[in-house]
Amino acid sequence: MSTEDPLPQLRAFVDERDWAQFHTPANLAKSISIEAAELLELFQWSEDADEAKVREELADVLTYCFLLADRIGAEPGQLILDKLSLTRAKYPAEKARGRSDKYDRL
Amino acid sequence: MSTEDPLPQLRAFVDERDWAQFHTPANLAKSISIEAAELLELFQWSEDADEAKVREELADVLTYCFLLADRIGAEPGQLILDKLSLTRAKYPAEKARGRSDKYDRL
Amino acid sequence: MSTEDPLPQLRAFVDERDWAQFHTPANLAKSISIEAAELLELFQWSEDADEAKVREELADVLTYCFLLADRIGAEPGQLILDKLSLTRAKYPAEKARGRSDKYDRL
Amino acid sequence: MSTEDPLPQLRAFVDERDWAQFHTPANLAKSISIEAAELLELFQWSEDADEAKVREELADVLTYCFLLADRIGAEPGQLILDKLSLTRAKYPAEKARGRSDKYDRL
Repeated sequence: MSTEDPLPQLRAFVDERDWAQFHTPANLAKSISIEAAELLELFQWSEDADEAKVREELADVLTYCFLLADRIGAEPGQLILDKLSLTRAKYPAEKARGRSDKYDRL
Repeated sequence: MSTEDPLPQLRAFVDERDWAQFHTPANLAKSISIEAAELLELFQWSEDADEAKVREELADVLTYCFLLADRIGAEPGQLILDKLSLTRAKYPAEKARGRSDKYDRL
Repeated sequence: MSTEDPLPQLRAFVDERDWAQFHTPANLAKSISIEAAELLELFQWSEDADEAKVREELADVLTYCFLLADRIGAEPGQLILDKLSLTRAKYPAEKARGRSDKYDRL
Repeated sequence: MSTEDPLPQLRAFVDERDWAQFHTPANLAKSISIEAAELLELFQWSEDADEAKVREELADVLTYCFLLADRIGAEPGQLILDKLSLTRAKYPAEKARGRSDKYDRL
């Protein structure tokens, strides 16, 4: 599966509305938390949630994440891979297998 | 810029640790909120934050977002684009230009 | 049970450290979200959490809530009661009994 | 100022709706994060927010905090005071004065 790059359309959307002025890293960080909570709200009282709504709310979190990545000159997929090498070292497969404990309790 | 697809490595990382059992949509939604708040913490008392830390915390949010997208069979870039067409209709450029108001106050 | 008023000690704690300068409403709102996520983290992978830790993290959320209430000249118990009368009207007992639906779906 | 105890009315409100079944500690922790983000949303693009809305959203966070405290048999004011003695030790006034650094960087 190839990953569709939404960045050109995201940037055009922001430019057409002159919204870059609001998109400071601090404001984008707040926005990510706010949208993450709207996603969480779908699971507030139950383990199950309407999947169409999950897609929409997850899209909102991802949108602000991509905008913040763009703002700091980073590429989302690369950020994930860079962090993954750190996490691999913190959670060695043989120690972490089948456990949800934090790395300092493995 | 082409977007690196981190999904094959993410899936391998999870499989090697047998962690898919913990990654229910509800748990991933909680995880996204938790990591979003760690990102926000970098801006708790100031508009400025250490960029290396921003990259790491943003990577954590993105990681759980990609895992949730994968779990529901969605592709992150496509989710963003699907939502963007809805948002375009809610925030017409000529009305929303230069304003941070919610769509129902434009 | 009478409610202990922690405000005099909270105010003294903040004054001794000259921290009121950081406690703008916006920063306190961020702090409440950050601490709320630390509480949530105790339930990230399980319905059960260590109760001593729940007490500590809940205390952190409450502390910032009380500081924000104080900052805007409000009394926490009174805020709750004022909102409760609004919520009573939105969720009439006979309609809402035993249901976790939002008021617009009752 | 004496603190009004909202607990008797809160308990009656929940009982009349038979909602205690939904109020597990895990669900209340999610609810606190969700409401905290609605408070944060008032400050999403600006340092200033409508004060009537701040009071309402802060009330929602406080309500779930009081319900969780009640659920674990704790008293909100006492929780704050218990935690405050720990925080006093971590942030000695002479070291922390006028600084927003974390305790491990003082």
